[in-house]
Amino acid sequence: MPKLADRAHLMPPSPIRKLVPYAEKAKKKGIHVYHINIGQPDIKSPQEFMDAFRNHDLEILPYGHSAGLWEYRDALVSYYKKFDIHISSEEILVTHGGSEAIIFAMMTVMDPGEEIIIPEPFYTNYNGFAIEAGVRIVPVTSQVEEGFKLPPITEIEKKITAKTRAVMICSPNNPTGYVYTPEEMEALRKLVIKHDLFFFSDEVYREFIYEGAVYTSVLHLKDIEQQAVLLDSISKRYSVCGARVGCLITHNKQILDSGLRLGQARLCPATLEQMAAQAAIHTPDSYFEEVIQEYRKRRDVVFEELQKIPGVVALKPQGAFYTIVKLPVDDADLFSTWLLNDFHFQQETIMLAPANGFYATPGKGVDEVRIAFVLNVESMRRSMEILREALKVYPGRTL
Amino acid sequence: MPKLADRAHLMPPSPIRKLVPYAEKAKKKGIHVYHINIGQPDIKSPQEFMDAFRNHDLEILPYGHSAGLWEYRDALVSYYKKFDIHISSEEILVTHGGSEAIIFAMMTVMDPGEEIIIPEPFYTNYNGFAIEAGVRIVPVTSQVEEGFKLPPITEIEKKITAKTRAVMICSPNNPTGYVYTPEEMEALRKLVIKHDLFFFSDEVYREFIYEGAVYTSVLHLKDIEQQAVLLDSISKRYSVCGARVGCLITHNKQILDSGLRLGQARLCPATLEQMAAQAAIHTPDSYFEEVIQEYRKRRDVVFEELQKIPGVVALKPQGAFYTIVKLPVDDADLFSTWLLNDFHFQQETIMLAPANGFYATPGKGVDEVRIAFVLNVESMRRSMEILREALKVYPGRTL
Repeated sequence: MPKLADRAHLMPPSPIRKLVPYAEKAKKKGIHVYHINIGQPDIKSPQEFMDAFRNHDLEILPYGHSAGLWEYRDALVSYYKKFDIHISSEEILVTHGGSEAIIFAMMTVMDPGEEIIIPEPFYTNYNGFAIEAGVRIVPVTSQVEEGFKLPPITEIEKKITAKTRAVMICSPNNPTGYVYTPEEMEALRKLVIKHDLFFFSDEVYREFIYEGAVYTSVLHLKDIEQQAVLLDSISKRYSVCGARVGCLITHNKQILDSGLRLGQARLCPATLEQMAAQAAIHTPDSYFEEVIQEYRKRRDVVFEELQKIPGVVALKPQGAFYTIVKLPVDDADLFSTWLLNDFHFQQETIMLAPANGFYATPGKGVDEVRIAFVLNVESMRRSMEILREALKVYPGRTL
Repeated sequence: MPKLADRAHLMPPSPIRKLVPYAEKAKKKGIHVYHINIGQPDIKSPQEFMDAFRNHDLEILPYGHSAGLWEYRDALVSYYKKFDIHISSEEILVTHGGSEAIIFAMMTVMDPGEEIIIPEPFYTNYNGFAIEAGVRIVPVTSQVEEGFKLPPITEIEKKITAKTRAVMICSPNNPTGYVYTPEEMEALRKLVIKHDLFFFSDEVYREFIYEGAVYTSVLHLKDIEQQAVLLDSISKRYSVCGARVGCLITHNKQILDSGLRLGQARLCPATLEQMAAQAAIHTPDSYFEEVIQEYRKRRDVVFEELQKIPGVVALKPQGAFYTIVKLPVDDADLFSTWLLNDFHFQQETIMLAPANGFYATPGKGVDEVRIAFVLNVESMRRSMEILREALKVYPGRTL
């Protein structure tokens, strides 16, 4: 039997997926599992989006433009204008979810062996995309004790080598909920100018910013038009994770040209999904106001309850719908498995995302977990109660 | 301004895309253009597929399983059984179109710098996928004069090096319409056993086989369970090119495992599209009978008309809905441009796909074009009439 490629073995199995069989086993035993491990919101998708499928009048479902339907791109221009982001339809490349936008950005800008600097913890799947593109992610650690703010620029600069081609951030951040400040964005702007680097910015959570934080897009920054690349997705915005519509936006024509060639190879993004995404541009503001209010309540409840648990280091995230929490446990991986396999509180338990999967530096985040505010307020409160009870009896507790 | 990756410049611009501005210009001058250059059929999609979107009752569009919805995979098992292909749901990886299936197969089986042997002419976009995967396509030329049958095994064997990891075919073939015979498939089976290679088979046109040809799947072949990889898509089957649903099927668990990790990085294929594809499994046989009859008529008309044109070498393809035609011209690229830019016959012209883009060997296919039977019988007949008239006056004609 012929052997597989070496890179096939590089792809790490998802740390959450490892837990899935345990969750299934728990359910078989009649235990209810609260899934606060994943980014699948329970929020209803906008009617405009869902109705677009119901009301289609196509007789054939044809290929669309490889860079996305023009009508949809035109609609996106007006969407971004509301956020003071000024682009033209030609500067948008519609992709299969934010995932493909990141892959296209990496493949266009970096050759195999080149490097991209990303503050950790970061969204686990960046690892997969980097392996596909053959590039190396160089992490710079941000600290829970510092609220996951941008590590000092001097720390980032230390990581720059002859192979460094880009820095990348996610703001509002998955998994930390941190929103980079205008000052931090300005510091990064100066850094990429100084070292002639590309600046990738994953901003899929821009709708989810709570009091006190200011959204700064990479496309708000001056004089880096040729370096700035915005990476986006409608998955979280409209609670339509299963739609797989994202985009890459840049003023850099070379990136757009090369990205389009990658896009032409795979022909086009899904046509009906883009039509629905176009309809969703007209989602009323009231939809987002309600959604944000709901997430804020959940966040507040989670924070309030976490503060009551001895030994827990918790933050009140300013954006997105995640928080990274430090727990008084030996190993969050083992703890998360134990929660599903060996524990229940009144026939209920929780599924967490161990945070080590969000760090590239070995040994980091071993006592941290990510909690996603994807269940209603009562379920989130109950989940925190279960966490508290679990920490009282977990054999590997360190308190 | 930082420079782009070297590989960004490797991606060839699509030879057809180069012609698009000329087609647009012709249309602006009031000239009707028959698009026989692309694989976008005019055939109506099955009602079952289109209605599935109209009838959905989802309130949230959630992530699905990274390998595809179980219900859809179960339905696919029954679909393949009709073709005497026996697999389980666990052996299917649903992908963003056939494109992603090919990328996953290449990335899983080959490391950068390794080689895959493919008979040319082949589907142009294989080049793009190979560049993304960093692998090298090694062509073996099949000849129009030989009906594009499989080149002699000895010729293929000459191309095998220490870096060769796989051979790949497409049957029924895009762009030639050739259907590999059971004997040719058996010869390839022996070859991959002898040299311990993977055998990729793109079989997206299996529904479109006319009289006289026998469909042989790579999964019909014995004793290569661990080497055979079937690559598929619903785009042509149901005339739903804009749906972007494909799959990779293999009995090789390692490929499935590694492919799934690539799949997990990009989360999932589109959920509603898979639900529609599942509904389409129940498309009645009468739908395909009508469609095949229609394509057969078009093919017969095209072949009949081409035979009347002096200097043209035409074949009667046994499958798919394409044919590669040798024309008495200096350069099919120039001729195709001239057709749009400098010619019309009674205010009408045609857009062709120059065939050099389907060859990897420089200089091959320069006097060949691909014609797609994607318009109705009258339009196909008219297109051939236009071709005949054009060849009478084209300045670069060689006859």
